[in-house]
Amino acid sequence: MNNKPKIAVFGSGSWATAIVKMLCENLETVGWYMRSEYSLEYIKRNEHNPNYLSSVEFDINQLFLSKDINEMVEYADYLIFAIPSAFVQDELDKINVSLKDKILFSAIKGIIPKSGLIVGEHFHEKMSIPFENIGVITGPCHAEEVALERLSYLTIACQDESKAKVLSSFLESDYIKTKVSDDIIGTEYAAMLKNIYAIAAGIAHGLGYGDNFQSVLMSNSIREMKKFIKKVHKMKRNINNSAYLGDLLVTGYSTFSRNRMFGNMIGKGYTVKSAMMEMVMVAEGYYATKSAYEINQKNGANTPIIDTVYRVLYENKNPKNQFKKLTDLLD
Amino acid sequence: MNNKPKIAVFGSGSWATAIVKMLCENLETVGWYMRSEYSLEYIKRNEHNPNYLSSVEFDINQLFLSKDINEMVEYADYLIFAIPSAFVQDELDKINVSLKDKILFSAIKGIIPKSGLIVGEHFHEKMSIPFENIGVITGPCHAEEVALERLSYLTIACQDESKAKVLSSFLESDYIKTKVSDDIIGTEYAAMLKNIYAIAAGIAHGLGYGDNFQSVLMSNSIREMKKFIKKVHKMKRNINNSAYLGDLLVTGYSTFSRNRMFGNMIGKGYTVKSAMMEMVMVAEGYYATKSAYEINQKNGANTPIIDTVYRVLYENKNPKNQFKKLTDLLD
Repeated sequence: MNNKPKIAVFGSGSWATAIVKMLCENLETVGWYMRSEYSLEYIKRNEHNPNYLSSVEFDINQLFLSKDINEMVEYADYLIFAIPSAFVQDELDKINVSLKDKILFSAIKGIIPKSGLIVGEHFHEKMSIPFENIGVITGPCHAEEVALERLSYLTIACQDESKAKVLSSFLESDYIKTKVSDDIIGTEYAAMLKNIYAIAAGIAHGLGYGDNFQSVLMSNSIREMKKFIKKVHKMKRNINNSAYLGDLLVTGYSTFSRNRMFGNMIGKGYTVKSAMMEMVMVAEGYYATKSAYEINQKNGANTPIIDTVYRVLYENKNPKNQFKKLTDLLD
Repeated sequence: MNNKPKIAVFGSGSWATAIVKMLCENLETVGWYMRSEYSLEYIKRNEHNPNYLSSVEFDINQLFLSKDINEMVEYADYLIFAIPSAFVQDELDKINVSLKDKILFSAIKGIIPKSGLIVGEHFHEKMSIPFENIGVITGPCHAEEVALERLSYLTIACQDESKAKVLSSFLESDYIKTKVSDDIIGTEYAAMLKNIYAIAAGIAHGLGYGDNFQSVLMSNSIREMKKFIKKVHKMKRNINNSAYLGDLLVTGYSTFSRNRMFGNMIGKGYTVKSAMMEMVMVAEGYYATKSAYEINQKNGANTPIIDTVYRVLYENKNPKNQFKKLTDLLD
């Protein structure tokens, strides 16, 4: 048992909590970093997360909890980051111990605002982590269903597939199946782009478009996603695999998705600002829209859906008119 | 206006009614054949279908109604069949006038039980209609949303694209957009196969699988559909176009789909027989499953989802055990 690598999860949200739960099925000890001392002490006392997936009970003896990120980095061989992309930079900036030989996995769906990079690229370019030590954990997976132990499939991507396999083996269980991939760039962009398409689905729903249109929108979204990712990183990939199409569908068709809800409010007539104020946390697709739009300005893929969402969110354009125009560009 | 071809719809169900409505947006006269004298007289008196989409009001002066199929065949240049696949043979057998130069479009999603052929193939092989006079109208399109004039996209397929374009032009309106295709075989198989995948989605839901699994199931379904259709008719097609993926999604994610409901009952523990008895009309996917399974026994595509549904529906196998095995074959 001592040969098992040490694994730590960074973050205290629902996705972080779900990943800790998965690892607890296989490991004697799971490292869990969170910055909130309150949450940490609460978990120690009550054996569940106060704010997210609070129905999930942990055996406290299985958890190595810390609010010292450097202590946790030093502890672990595999570091899994599940902190919202808007805040991950602040946490990474606190690290002052060596990351040499550490294997960094991103379970974050989005762009780091300051660098404008997806997390894997950020690890590589800004933190000099070699690509063979960078990985991605992606869905389709609502954390809430992991809490219920409903069967879910994860894709674990790493250029060095042996590392993806190691991590896979610790995430698998009766209710988690895993698939290994070497497409870290594509899977991470897919995870980010799907949030934009979920906003589009929400706006359409808010405007009164029905199920027939939603299916056309999703069919166009997956084709657009394929074109976008191909420009960023060309390789052989089947865009209909679960990590791409499955992830798009689980979000686009979810009435619980924060991104879809945000879009829905805008379709219903809320301004972007007031929709944001109604939500406890900003939908990640809001930031993703700007980043994706800017990246694609250079790359030139044909992305009418992203462009439409961008104009609605960032140029204050009328959603009804923009979507009317969009419908002529879909097929 | 006299140069406009004459168009007639055969059938009195919801999809037939929706197509008549679309045509009424563009044509002075639309032919409408139905075998039920009661329905026909009811429509004449009340200007709406008694049983399906009864909120749709027709201008009776626009309709040429007849319960004589031969009269209607002689009247029309374009014949659109929207009769459930289980009953279309009975209607076709009544035709004793010439079909020479008639253009036959199928809006039927399924296999003709006796011949084991999709409708387009049946027209060609059993009725000697040349392929250039055969076409397909396909969704994604719930007829109910056409009644509400919610934006929907149709694909009109014909080997002779000029004929597809003519029919398209009469179906298009403010709320209907059309796309032309030359893949009559592929679009028609897709329309049939999606009902099997909707049954699978229903069984999974009935068994308690959640949204994470449904997205994986749909992601695997579209890949399986691609392989199945490629064996039947190999040509360049983008399986993510609306006629294939969109049609799969609108059915697979619909809680109103008869096929999904049928599957759901089986997942909940109903026997196949009792589930069928609960429903007014047999779900088309029930027949499609047998046909698709048998066709694929010859073709040898890898179709674990179809095979699983087949074993549950026709070999009386336990849905829970079969789906447990299926989950190991998906990714």
